[in-house]
Amino acid sequence: QLTDGKGRCSCIGKGSDVIQQKHFGKIEVIPKSSSCEYVEIIATLKLTGEQICLNPDSKWVQKMMRAIIKKRSSRSTRQ
Amino acid sequence: QLTDGKGRCSCIGKGSDVIQQKHFGKIEVIPKSSSCEYVEIIATLKLTGEQICLNPDSKWVQKMMRAIIKKRSSRSTRQ
Repeated sequence: QLTDGKGRCSCIGKGSDVIQQKHFGKIEVIPKSSSCEYVEIIATLKLTGEQICLNPDSKWVQKMMRAIIKKRSSRSTRQ
Repeated sequence: QLTDGKGRCSCIGKGSDVIQQKHFGKIEVIPKSSSCEYVEIIATLKLTGEQICLNPDSKWVQKMMRAIIKKRSSRSTRQ
């Protein structure tokens, strides 16, 4: 799934289209850059710390990202 | 902006509403969890590696996240 880091992109191939959101702790979104011409989304699994590439073109992944960010973060009440 | 890590959440307060997308290399989205009841979005600046909390409730931040993910990643042509 992930390259050994020497290559320019972190992910090999498109990545997973679907993943259970409850399994991962953090998601990294790496915009296109001079070192990698693909947007890359990497989820880190809570239990194992394993990193899994997600497919940025997957409707499901896009929907999940929006859902996570939109979840009433109730921080608006926090100063 | 960020706590010293001992607290439960990584970000102090709501975070920035607007940030120049071209300045950061990577964005971490940390869903709510037992250790922090807020969704947290942390951008890492390319040049300095500095981490900046973004406000998940900011329409601008949400729009930027969608834009990054939706940018024709042209990976669909890559196997």
